[in-house]
Amino acid sequence: MESKQDRLKHEIEYLGKLTSTSGEGCTRFSYSKEDKKAREYLHKIFEELNLEVSVDGIGNIRAKFHGEKDLPSIMIGSHIDTVKNGGKFDGVVGVMSALETIRIIKEKGIKIKRPIELIVFAEEEGSNFGVTMLGSKYLIGYLDKEDLKEIRNDKNLSAYDMIKDFGLEIEKEQKVINKEEVECMIETHVEQGGILDTKNIPVGIVDAIAGMKTCKVVVKGTSNHAGSTPMDLRQDPMTGAAEIILGVEKLAKEEALDTTVGTVGKIFSKPNSTNVIPEQVELYIDTRDVKPDGLEFMIKEINKLIKNVCRERKLVGEFIVIGENDSVILSKEIKETIEKVAEDKNYNYMKINSGAVHDAAMLAEILDVGMIFVPSINGKSHCPQELTNYEDIKKGCDLLINSVIELCNK
Amino acid sequence: MESKQDRLKHEIEYLGKLTSTSGEGCTRFSYSKEDKKAREYLHKIFEELNLEVSVDGIGNIRAKFHGEKDLPSIMIGSHIDTVKNGGKFDGVVGVMSALETIRIIKEKGIKIKRPIELIVFAEEEGSNFGVTMLGSKYLIGYLDKEDLKEIRNDKNLSAYDMIKDFGLEIEKEQKVINKEEVECMIETHVEQGGILDTKNIPVGIVDAIAGMKTCKVVVKGTSNHAGSTPMDLRQDPMTGAAEIILGVEKLAKEEALDTTVGTVGKIFSKPNSTNVIPEQVELYIDTRDVKPDGLEFMIKEINKLIKNVCRERKLVGEFIVIGENDSVILSKEIKETIEKVAEDKNYNYMKINSGAVHDAAMLAEILDVGMIFVPSINGKSHCPQELTNYEDIKKGCDLLINSVIELCNK
Repeated sequence: MESKQDRLKHEIEYLGKLTSTSGEGCTRFSYSKEDKKAREYLHKIFEELNLEVSVDGIGNIRAKFHGEKDLPSIMIGSHIDTVKNGGKFDGVVGVMSALETIRIIKEKGIKIKRPIELIVFAEEEGSNFGVTMLGSKYLIGYLDKEDLKEIRNDKNLSAYDMIKDFGLEIEKEQKVINKEEVECMIETHVEQGGILDTKNIPVGIVDAIAGMKTCKVVVKGTSNHAGSTPMDLRQDPMTGAAEIILGVEKLAKEEALDTTVGTVGKIFSKPNSTNVIPEQVELYIDTRDVKPDGLEFMIKEINKLIKNVCRERKLVGEFIVIGENDSVILSKEIKETIEKVAEDKNYNYMKINSGAVHDAAMLAEILDVGMIFVPSINGKSHCPQELTNYEDIKKGCDLLINSVIELCNK
Repeated sequence: MESKQDRLKHEIEYLGKLTSTSGEGCTRFSYSKEDKKAREYLHKIFEELNLEVSVDGIGNIRAKFHGEKDLPSIMIGSHIDTVKNGGKFDGVVGVMSALETIRIIKEKGIKIKRPIELIVFAEEEGSNFGVTMLGSKYLIGYLDKEDLKEIRNDKNLSAYDMIKDFGLEIEKEQKVINKEEVECMIETHVEQGGILDTKNIPVGIVDAIAGMKTCKVVVKGTSNHAGSTPMDLRQDPMTGAAEIILGVEKLAKEEALDTTVGTVGKIFSKPNSTNVIPEQVELYIDTRDVKPDGLEFMIKEINKLIKNVCRERKLVGEFIVIGENDSVILSKEIKETIEKVAEDKNYNYMKINSGAVHDAAMLAEILDVGMIFVPSINGKSHCPQELTNYEDIKKGCDLLINSVIELCNK
């Protein structure tokens, strides 16, 4: 079976237009009016395809295409929310490949024993509350509605209230996913790194997903006038923060494992005035590794780094891990199934690790999980320049369709 | 003559309550509703004292107390706007000392030949637009209303529009101050550094005011996913910015003059997301020195620093000086007058440099200028902890009153 490249392109481009930052990449936060439009669009298609649709309390959409038997289903899909000024491929490629899979199977009248469930996860990127994968965490029961009351955005609005205001039935009973209803899950996604593009390979079969830790660091100093405070009488948290930023880079680049990364992308200075030595600087560290040892090393060393910088500079440092996910080795059986399809089709492929965490990693707590990667040109993602060739998206989708047919009939 | 400490305290405390951040220091931006209340309060007092009041297009208030002759006046005063979460003494001490001076001279029926003009400068701190001393720059003709149309706040509102919306007559003819109407100017101010407090000296006679340069730096890199971009493939503007912040500190602390300072207080990351390598980081450098050589060195070396960091890290750096003031040596005659009063009164005093730039420095372009400093406890200013003892404010005011009487009758 083969997917239709034009149709995939049309659907991805259509969703890409539902953005709050026209001309500056795709911005479609979960629970925004752009998200509402995207959901309405998908619901209409699901209805046309006669799928059995359900939406849970947090906004995960499940659309079921029944097979011949009432067996646990094969779940496929991804998310449709984006980061601020992100790209139109991240997440959407997985959702539209899943949609194309159901369309092809339906159109070609292919017989399948197991049902297929298309899933659209809510709030994967953490754009609203700084907590990633809210939807999949809710689906596996890692979070409940009480937790959502505690998770708040920059304006102090809780996830619970935002979800309720969006019109979702957050009060209804939370149904945690289980092996009796779903057999396994496959997510197609853009790589978001430059490995496939550099090697000119159109598809990757994911071997492992990196674990991550997100840390919040608050450095407190003594706020003072920038003109009249001599250099040697300062307790400046901005210079302390700068040392920490460079320290994190050095740890990830030179001292941890080859697979380790560490990033500071978010920073706030208070009061953030040109002529005032700040009172405090808040920064967020994102560190990831497919190997648990790398992550453990980073957390231990970042802690030391902050202590040393603060002691030297007479600052007060606070350090907490605000989010974490373990690394995940994906299902051997699914990997082999996808690999066999790639070989049958004679598609050039490689085994690859995922530096980014995905909803699939959450579901791996409960289900067997597989992932298919397509290349990100120049390795770019989470930015307006994010780009994947539609030829490659088609090939990734072909792997998905044929693997799903194979798994449905097992 | 002596000032009344209780009255000084009452007036300063009263204005301190006009803040938009109750409990978190004093925040009273020019053209805000707190500013409006402060202006109404002062206008009422000026009316009671029968002063001749005029307000210029930008909002500088001048209140004239006539002398026996129609000679150029002695100008005294400061500003009433604050930084965000600043203190209640910065600026207000100078305005209230000037008010107390007129009150004492009036109450005691002291004969003066020259008029006294109390001035309240608008928008000294640059809190609205990032440009300091707008009021005094307008008064000396350094800026006109066309310039005010170009100066914009974070919400892209021009100074011109904000001033107009506040109800000021910005369209009326701009009157530039001159020696025919004003003989000289004295500003009383809190030191905003720790020298007087450390030495336990209640008053300082300012010898020179530091020059300053404010620079905007934009570091552009390549935005990308924080998880899937290997450390050696990054062009991360945050780590570049961190190197620049530490470089500025090193230049000011170790390589420039003893009198040089350099600060980064304001920073923005774009898009400012935890899991995204930023596309760009914008930072602001404030550097100051009483010696022009120190400032020149800093600008030259900061330029080199940014070029080196950006070349090494394959980033693009932009650097522009967005504000500058030359250093100023204050009037010998005024310094000697104040010094004589301090000696007559047997007040412990010292000659001191000002690291902070003041409205007086602007007026020094046209008039002879003097400044009186009172201590800042622990050197703190531009923060809620800003504090000056009222005993010291009284002494500073005594120097002002007696110097003004002396200068009025010269």
